[in-house]
Amino acid sequence: MNTYGRGFRVTIFGASHGPGVGCVIDGCPANVLVGQERVQREVDRRKPSPGIGTPRAEEDLVQLQSGILEERTTGAPIQIFIQNKDRDSSKYLGFRSTPRPGHADYPALVKYGKGHDIRGGGQFSGRMTAPLAAAGAVAKALLEGEGIRIGAYARSIGTVEDAEERSLDDVLDKVYSRPTRAATDGLDRLMSEEILAARQEQDSVGGVVRCLADGLPVGLGEPFFDTLDGELAKFMFAIPAVKGVEFGSGFSAARARGSQNNDAYRFQDGKVVTLTNHAGGVLGGMSSGMPLDIKVAFKPTASIPREQRTVDLGTGKEAMIKIEGRHDPCIAPRAVVVVEAAAALVLADLMMRGGYIARQC
Amino acid sequence: MNTYGRGFRVTIFGASHGPGVGCVIDGCPANVLVGQERVQREVDRRKPSPGIGTPRAEEDLVQLQSGILEERTTGAPIQIFIQNKDRDSSKYLGFRSTPRPGHADYPALVKYGKGHDIRGGGQFSGRMTAPLAAAGAVAKALLEGEGIRIGAYARSIGTVEDAEERSLDDVLDKVYSRPTRAATDGLDRLMSEEILAARQEQDSVGGVVRCLADGLPVGLGEPFFDTLDGELAKFMFAIPAVKGVEFGSGFSAARARGSQNNDAYRFQDGKVVTLTNHAGGVLGGMSSGMPLDIKVAFKPTASIPREQRTVDLGTGKEAMIKIEGRHDPCIAPRAVVVVEAAAALVLADLMMRGGYIARQC
Amino acid sequence: MNTYGRGFRVTIFGASHGPGVGCVIDGCPANVLVGQERVQREVDRRKPSPGIGTPRAEEDLVQLQSGILEERTTGAPIQIFIQNKDRDSSKYLGFRSTPRPGHADYPALVKYGKGHDIRGGGQFSGRMTAPLAAAGAVAKALLEGEGIRIGAYARSIGTVEDAEERSLDDVLDKVYSRPTRAATDGLDRLMSEEILAARQEQDSVGGVVRCLADGLPVGLGEPFFDTLDGELAKFMFAIPAVKGVEFGSGFSAARARGSQNNDAYRFQDGKVVTLTNHAGGVLGGMSSGMPLDIKVAFKPTASIPREQRTVDLGTGKEAMIKIEGRHDPCIAPRAVVVVEAAAALVLADLMMRGGYIARQC
Amino acid sequence: MNTYGRGFRVTIFGASHGPGVGCVIDGCPANVLVGQERVQREVDRRKPSPGIGTPRAEEDLVQLQSGILEERTTGAPIQIFIQNKDRDSSKYLGFRSTPRPGHADYPALVKYGKGHDIRGGGQFSGRMTAPLAAAGAVAKALLEGEGIRIGAYARSIGTVEDAEERSLDDVLDKVYSRPTRAATDGLDRLMSEEILAARQEQDSVGGVVRCLADGLPVGLGEPFFDTLDGELAKFMFAIPAVKGVEFGSGFSAARARGSQNNDAYRFQDGKVVTLTNHAGGVLGGMSSGMPLDIKVAFKPTASIPREQRTVDLGTGKEAMIKIEGRHDPCIAPRAVVVVEAAAALVLADLMMRGGYIARQC
Repeated sequence: MNTYGRGFRVTIFGASHGPGVGCVIDGCPANVLVGQERVQREVDRRKPSPGIGTPRAEEDLVQLQSGILEERTTGAPIQIFIQNKDRDSSKYLGFRSTPRPGHADYPALVKYGKGHDIRGGGQFSGRMTAPLAAAGAVAKALLEGEGIRIGAYARSIGTVEDAEERSLDDVLDKVYSRPTRAATDGLDRLMSEEILAARQEQDSVGGVVRCLADGLPVGLGEPFFDTLDGELAKFMFAIPAVKGVEFGSGFSAARARGSQNNDAYRFQDGKVVTLTNHAGGVLGGMSSGMPLDIKVAFKPTASIPREQRTVDLGTGKEAMIKIEGRHDPCIAPRAVVVVEAAAALVLADLMMRGGYIARQC
Repeated sequence: MNTYGRGFRVTIFGASHGPGVGCVIDGCPANVLVGQERVQREVDRRKPSPGIGTPRAEEDLVQLQSGILEERTTGAPIQIFIQNKDRDSSKYLGFRSTPRPGHADYPALVKYGKGHDIRGGGQFSGRMTAPLAAAGAVAKALLEGEGIRIGAYARSIGTVEDAEERSLDDVLDKVYSRPTRAATDGLDRLMSEEILAARQEQDSVGGVVRCLADGLPVGLGEPFFDTLDGELAKFMFAIPAVKGVEFGSGFSAARARGSQNNDAYRFQDGKVVTLTNHAGGVLGGMSSGMPLDIKVAFKPTASIPREQRTVDLGTGKEAMIKIEGRHDPCIAPRAVVVVEAAAALVLADLMMRGGYIARQC
Repeated sequence: MNTYGRGFRVTIFGASHGPGVGCVIDGCPANVLVGQERVQREVDRRKPSPGIGTPRAEEDLVQLQSGILEERTTGAPIQIFIQNKDRDSSKYLGFRSTPRPGHADYPALVKYGKGHDIRGGGQFSGRMTAPLAAAGAVAKALLEGEGIRIGAYARSIGTVEDAEERSLDDVLDKVYSRPTRAATDGLDRLMSEEILAARQEQDSVGGVVRCLADGLPVGLGEPFFDTLDGELAKFMFAIPAVKGVEFGSGFSAARARGSQNNDAYRFQDGKVVTLTNHAGGVLGGMSSGMPLDIKVAFKPTASIPREQRTVDLGTGKEAMIKIEGRHDPCIAPRAVVVVEAAAALVLADLMMRGGYIARQC
Repeated sequence: MNTYGRGFRVTIFGASHGPGVGCVIDGCPANVLVGQERVQREVDRRKPSPGIGTPRAEEDLVQLQSGILEERTTGAPIQIFIQNKDRDSSKYLGFRSTPRPGHADYPALVKYGKGHDIRGGGQFSGRMTAPLAAAGAVAKALLEGEGIRIGAYARSIGTVEDAEERSLDDVLDKVYSRPTRAATDGLDRLMSEEILAARQEQDSVGGVVRCLADGLPVGLGEPFFDTLDGELAKFMFAIPAVKGVEFGSGFSAARARGSQNNDAYRFQDGKVVTLTNHAGGVLGGMSSGMPLDIKVAFKPTASIPREQRTVDLGTGKEAMIKIEGRHDPCIAPRAVVVVEAAAALVLADLMMRGGYIARQC
């Protein structure tokens, strides 16, 4: 379903080639300061970077239609609408019978039948992440009041990997000046080249987005099932093209010994901290007080210009397909702000659910 | 919170050193055939293997106290209770002031204060997975009636990796005769040695469990947020010690090109299949009809006999800790049936939610 | 929170004097036939009747912005927006300090503080029922495909009561030609007079709406907690001004003997029916197969032109208030279509949740 | 489904003639003082009163099996189990083919088929309210810490009505010394006679329970849908035999004028109060700060010894039924503590959801 959250909720709607996309945010306390400009900034950070992104040029002007009055939340549900303007559906109708490899087309056609709006991928389009970025702006504004900060960056694009340990201060807000959202200019150049090489070969390439957050209260999360890591993972997998999520040492922990992987405690300025953060800030499904550290793997964009093998559901015969829509050769750079939004929405929800933030004055 | 699911729900309760642990399963249709023996078998598969597991010897006798009459579900909530018998809490009370590295102790003490039952890890103990295995038995019985099969195995223990492609038929039910739940006897020997080596060095080791499932209807999952992969990931992260989850090619997809990673369609016996399964059976958050393929990374057991650095919350000073309870040097083998149960519970929930299975006759 | 339902969900947003009001409907299967005209008709049935309603004249033009393509649902969330055009907020700002008796003003000001949008009652306005009527149109379209029919009428206005037993066929669609939504022209005249008398005395009057539904499958409802009657009651109490809900013989059952109140079974055309319907179609929280019979009590409109006693929250002194906005002297007639929508939304949700209707093709 | 609540949750399980009944309470903060004795007292208040109740004599000994350690909640889910001891299923098996009028038998048989456990009404038995009373003890203990008090009494039994205005202080804890839970000894005599007269005529009789609560924070409730009144109503309708719920003036408000029904504000000891409480403590779905005032209508017990008309589902012919189990001729007295428990569970949930009480220390 299209709603996430219990205490702080976001519901998204729309489709890639319909009148627009949008969201309803519910449960946000009144009196949070967030206006048009703040929301617009987050949505703009999701726009394709010149050169390495899709040529589809959406203005993405956010319209706040409910729940915000004079740049302050009222306590009523917040609705944000973004019109679709640069639609070109001419290239999509064939996909009804010949599903695109790596896309949601085939299961969606089976699930929704002829009602399914396949234009631009419909409700499965990456365009659905625009309202997520907008909702993330509201969640971030709420969390800032609690001293929680969230920042993400492109940790790898294809085979170009940024193995350096980075802190939140290294990346927060800074990466948005770089087309690939890399942590340094040097990496940005290498990653851009990786993307351009893929595009030149009529291909696409994947990447890993790393997200950090600090300021979480110790104990945040609602085990056994509604854990800090589990809720974050669930939301991350909702972002189109995500295939893996790990916290801290993640899969490499599976190869390690306990004596290496355990994070020893000590006091620092009267606060309990750990010397390492292999746990990625999560113990027993709750925040340990150390920075949250998530890695999210994005597969290469499924839509590539090369000819691919598929089937024709109408004729029952095999077929070839050449995808001619406008697509990003690598989704990871645009996904950076979306991963931040996802983290913000989950944290806001857990903060509300735990009663760390009250719904009322 | 301690409930998972909307259509088919499981609620767990209990604590490691309390009177017992148990679960309530709700939403299961009436007339599913499942009795004491079936539930007991799944719970027994979670028992420590001789030689490589903990010496704590729990009988784990399941008591069906509601919802099953004459080996058939009645439509009422199903309650299963498992007494704790072999409790030894003498080693735990010190952890109130000196939290064990890598454990939930510290955030739990902050969250629940002096009320927290720290004996054996309380509600954060791996013992909470016993009722999950029991609940999994009911979910599996329901799914079998729909032609869905689920099987998991130990894909790696420490640095011993089983890189072979395995099908569900290779592993289903078969791995439970091997102590490590490996796919072959040869791997079982190597993995057992890895575990024993860790134990000998007063250490522990991690591992990866791979889970396969087939027979899912195409389109299973409730995007945008309640996706097949997201729900599975959320549940997997609730299992103690899980640090990473990936589907199909997972993190390696992030390094790949689209032309390599896309799975081409073709027809096979009139059915749409893909030549490869890099997607791991999930497209757009829905089942593609290909086998589900999940990898779950377990960190090494946090409780190790070696002395470790920690803090004393009472004195505010640094301290050393030596953990003397009874623990598994590697959790992955016992987690195999728990991962299967997790998958079964998620699939049962999505099948009910989608109306693939009706609640009533 | 502003979302109702688990299987078939409606989320509402907006405020009385903001840019507009609207809803998002989620979980509706694809391929349900419902277009602009159908939705508009239901919304129009909520408009004030000439003579007995408010002078606020809203065009209430519905805009379908997501989830419906060529008069057919796509399976994506459905979004419907209704602009607010005839706003006059000049009369409301004083209510910030002097809450209107019988209104949500006082608790809302305490709950949301200075962020609360008090203009027109904000998110507590009866105007929020416009998107409910719109959502009801979609739910009705879905239910019609399952043979479920829903019809309501004004059973009493003030002291004018329609004690006659009415069947669904007597009222379905027919009452909308009468200003008060009474079941006969004679009653309509009497009820209109009751309303006009109240208006003339600068006063308001209450009423009871009765809602009938048939075609429900026997067993519909999810006891113990998510019962057919409980879910309906919960939704009805969300409608502004509702103070009581009863099923079948309701409160009069409390005065009766079991031998009078029990409904004896018999066969009719091979179907199990009851001779009477004191149960109102609900037994044990489930549909009995007999027509659903709900009575919903609406209090008199709280906003009356007469001077009333209140307090001034600013000065801490008692004060007098004269309410000058535009209001209906009786809300019951306009609530008839809203009660139908509420019933339709609950039934659609329970049908989806029980798997009576599948989410997918 | 068998779970109520989001922030403070109760899940019930069991059946009338199974091994026992019980509940799991989740979301309760740690460190709430509540022990065996407190829970047992509430469960005992539900026992049949000598003379006017059923002869079924259940010991109803509560077993706390999880979540409470040394009379203090641990933060883990709380499980309470109550064995069924005095079971006599011999009278029930015939009801499989001849459903009892006024009971859940018929819809349950349709919904769950031959799996349904019809003995004693199975999961639809009034016995399911025993774990509710137990759960209510925990909720009350939590709420007391917040200054919230809840008390109910029998307002009418059959035609004997207690029309007197009663305050919470008049009834709190006091009514449990009287068999009928009436507010005075005189009424208790009259009500007892009403019940005995019904029993003598092999009949049963209904009643109304009124529940009061004070100390609620102004603004409690989560409109638009999760309102204070709507949530309470939903829970009340889950209690077997409830047919109507009203707040404050309720159905009589529908006959009133606004000038009569509005509650004028004034200051009292610096607090905003109303001169009357026709609203029953609820405005716009939120607490007004005035005492909560709910009336709950119970129908006469469906099980009566008199011969009744029914159908034989096996033969397809009409049949007569004589119910020989052990039943209460009036359920209202035993329902008083259950209505209190219901109110406590709803208020605890809304207090947690709103963040009025935090989940963690």
